[in-house]
Amino acid sequence: MAKDLIKKRSEDYSGWYNDIVKHAGLAENSPVRGCMVIKPYGFAIWENMKAQLDKMFKETGHVNAYFPLLIPKSFLSKEAEHVEGFATECAVVTHHRLKNDPNGGGMIVDPDAKLEEELIIRPTSETIIWSTYRNWIQSYRDLPLLINQWANVMRWEMRTRAFLRTAEFLWQEGHTAHASKKEAMDESKMILDIYAKFAEEWMAMPVIKGIKTANERFAGADETFTIEALMQDGKALQSGTSHFLGQNFAKAFDVKFMNSNNKEEYVWATSWGVSTRLMGGLIMTHSDDDGLVLPPQLAPLQVVIVPIPKVNGVITEAVDKIVAGLKAKGISVQYDIDKKKSHAFKFNEYEIKGVPVRIGIGKRDLENNQVEIARRDTMEVYSQSLDNIVEHIEKLLEDIQTNLLNRAKDFRKERITSVDTFEEFKDVLENKGGFISAHWDGTTETELKIKDLTKATIRCIALDNEKEEGKCILTGRSSKQRVLFAKAY
Amino acid sequence: MAKDLIKKRSEDYSGWYNDIVKHAGLAENSPVRGCMVIKPYGFAIWENMKAQLDKMFKETGHVNAYFPLLIPKSFLSKEAEHVEGFATECAVVTHHRLKNDPNGGGMIVDPDAKLEEELIIRPTSETIIWSTYRNWIQSYRDLPLLINQWANVMRWEMRTRAFLRTAEFLWQEGHTAHASKKEAMDESKMILDIYAKFAEEWMAMPVIKGIKTANERFAGADETFTIEALMQDGKALQSGTSHFLGQNFAKAFDVKFMNSNNKEEYVWATSWGVSTRLMGGLIMTHSDDDGLVLPPQLAPLQVVIVPIPKVNGVITEAVDKIVAGLKAKGISVQYDIDKKKSHAFKFNEYEIKGVPVRIGIGKRDLENNQVEIARRDTMEVYSQSLDNIVEHIEKLLEDIQTNLLNRAKDFRKERITSVDTFEEFKDVLENKGGFISAHWDGTTETELKIKDLTKATIRCIALDNEKEEGKCILTGRSSKQRVLFAKAY
Repeated sequence: MAKDLIKKRSEDYSGWYNDIVKHAGLAENSPVRGCMVIKPYGFAIWENMKAQLDKMFKETGHVNAYFPLLIPKSFLSKEAEHVEGFATECAVVTHHRLKNDPNGGGMIVDPDAKLEEELIIRPTSETIIWSTYRNWIQSYRDLPLLINQWANVMRWEMRTRAFLRTAEFLWQEGHTAHASKKEAMDESKMILDIYAKFAEEWMAMPVIKGIKTANERFAGADETFTIEALMQDGKALQSGTSHFLGQNFAKAFDVKFMNSNNKEEYVWATSWGVSTRLMGGLIMTHSDDDGLVLPPQLAPLQVVIVPIPKVNGVITEAVDKIVAGLKAKGISVQYDIDKKKSHAFKFNEYEIKGVPVRIGIGKRDLENNQVEIARRDTMEVYSQSLDNIVEHIEKLLEDIQTNLLNRAKDFRKERITSVDTFEEFKDVLENKGGFISAHWDGTTETELKIKDLTKATIRCIALDNEKEEGKCILTGRSSKQRVLFAKAY
Repeated sequence: MAKDLIKKRSEDYSGWYNDIVKHAGLAENSPVRGCMVIKPYGFAIWENMKAQLDKMFKETGHVNAYFPLLIPKSFLSKEAEHVEGFATECAVVTHHRLKNDPNGGGMIVDPDAKLEEELIIRPTSETIIWSTYRNWIQSYRDLPLLINQWANVMRWEMRTRAFLRTAEFLWQEGHTAHASKKEAMDESKMILDIYAKFAEEWMAMPVIKGIKTANERFAGADETFTIEALMQDGKALQSGTSHFLGQNFAKAFDVKFMNSNNKEEYVWATSWGVSTRLMGGLIMTHSDDDGLVLPPQLAPLQVVIVPIPKVNGVITEAVDKIVAGLKAKGISVQYDIDKKKSHAFKFNEYEIKGVPVRIGIGKRDLENNQVEIARRDTMEVYSQSLDNIVEHIEKLLEDIQTNLLNRAKDFRKERITSVDTFEEFKDVLENKGGFISAHWDGTTETELKIKDLTKATIRCIALDNEKEEGKCILTGRSSKQRVLFAKAY
């Protein structure tokens, strides 16, 4: 049945993605252009992501706070590159009241309620936060400040895709302040490690850690670190970024501190974020033509038990024991006794929703002291003895988590290609996709020309990159190292 | 020292409140009019509130989702009373881009980027959610929908106070859809019970459950239930509301379902919310002239251990055991070994922040196998044997929680006054404050006249109210029951 609902990846990748988002109940378009509704099942996955990330941030000394949604226009303008980067995507609040149209046209904006200064819905919060930090930081004793915020932000995008690119999205944004350049740099790298660990161990999504080129840097950063993942269509997904901001925002907002030698200095900064975009990465890393596939670590429901063909007392008794055993181990499980749906219908539904393990249980199974187990990642179905069933499931969930990561790693391994000529580059890009490792002369001009000719961008210079003499694939000029190109979301 | 920082309640109640918010590190004003910055310590308390409420909502079958921040102006207008209630407080987005002023005036709003239809930053989400539910509900099988959202909302308030009344605030808003009037009514009452339970058991803040008069009802509701708390200055605080919306929003957004008899009906609705306003209630229920007082159930830090006069090896060894013991019981504890601050300074700091239990430990204490314990609620300080210290602290935290609730209950009990004449009414209102139980003739006209004359409003008709014949204190007309008046935040 999934076949009827969901397009095949091989035939219409983008249609497949939209079908999964829709039929797994993750999100849908809203009546507000570019803004999505995150539906309960999709939101439950995001909540699991949030909980784990929040734990990792807190374990490394960060605390949460909340800063205003609206930013005075003049604040945004204080850091020149920053406003340049966001100006074309700003949702602008200009009035604070509606009134009844005296000419009978219904509710209209009250022209008398025009704001003195326009307010921007935050596209990111560096400016409002650094204007606040100014009052919080006087001395080195006030540092570091390690603050994170879970928030909604708004960037007026013209072409939107659920989770991947939406006008409003949910994210966390860390904003830290430090007494030294080294400490700020260490922080931005440490956060990158947290992001990579989260992506691999929870999302089962392997990522390449790297540095962005000047051209791809965050507006206002001295250095942008990134984790880049590879989707099943061979395109890259920038999945999280951590910025070393130098003293740019401290200078823009005049945030100085007295250092331990009693000398005044500008504060060093980082900012870093991951967003609901990760949901898009999760979908496109694991899912298949039958629907969503979820790693057990993030699945809102890890195990579902379905009676075949229908529930009865003997089955319930056996199931109750399994459910209690799984719950005691912290495994989420649901016994689906809805009589309005057939077991075949349910099988299909849980497949589309990517529930990692399905247990089918019928009268004959019980007579044989066994159940039927279906694992979502491989679609394998087998009979399993009821003895030690809880331990079996626990182990199976771990296997699925590992299998998904390994499968994604294998997929990516086959799709990192080294090339030495522009012809090869175009050929691989066109016919194979994935990351292309190639020499580049280090100029923004060449980077933009390659993008113009091929739509490929430099995703990053991998952190574990080795130095190697070579010649730029486009200009033939000398290069000291390869960089990773790809088409990207 | 707290005495220097914090004004006395008896001399300047509102200054006292602001001082607590400031010096306990809870929040501060932002450069954006009416919007506050919630600081890490304040946010940690809110996170504890959220976690517990979220758990209670989920235990009763609710799930979380996320709906857009922005609402098309036309949506807001679809429910007549609703738009009437919110029109004067709307932050309106009219443009989606900035550009460089060609005349050199810096960044300006791009007049070419005017939106076709203005968008309102949600003051509440009934309209956007019911426009979405329209696609989610066809049959009685799709009901009930039990959805909650944690979100920021914006109501353009002219006079703002940290937590109590801010233009932007954080809250949860539940929006449920039901197949019958009774089920929706039961839901709104069940949520009121959850709110009351949370207020009493976690916040140690006793509340009166009641029904709002027509005049105080939520804009678009058929019935509004409320929990009303009493602050230390004798004013009431509406702390949470649960609305039975009837079929008003279903009719406004044309949301019908096929009932089990195959007949089409409009859907029944509720909505309900509590917000960061609860933080204001928490502060004003328990705190004193020395600073914040927190109930242990919501305190980010329940126990702090301070070495006297300074840390040494023997002390650390003893403390490590206590810390391990407390953590094993799930009690949050911090050993403050900061050498830059004296223990007297620390005592003061933790008092202002309302940490429920402080343990002081010095060399001589250890020689006597004891520590010094200070409980924040009573400011009592005593020596306690190290034997069974962990069990003692565990019990002490429970005692503090209970004591705070009982103290607040006693305070309120003395401040619910029955009166039978308008003279008495004014006298009690002026000289004693609190809730006044009085007869009212049931008309909005009288209610507004009393408000006009005294600033007192009808907070609610208590759910456990007894019927009683009487005469309205203002008009002398007949009345069937007493209602509760108070001045309110």
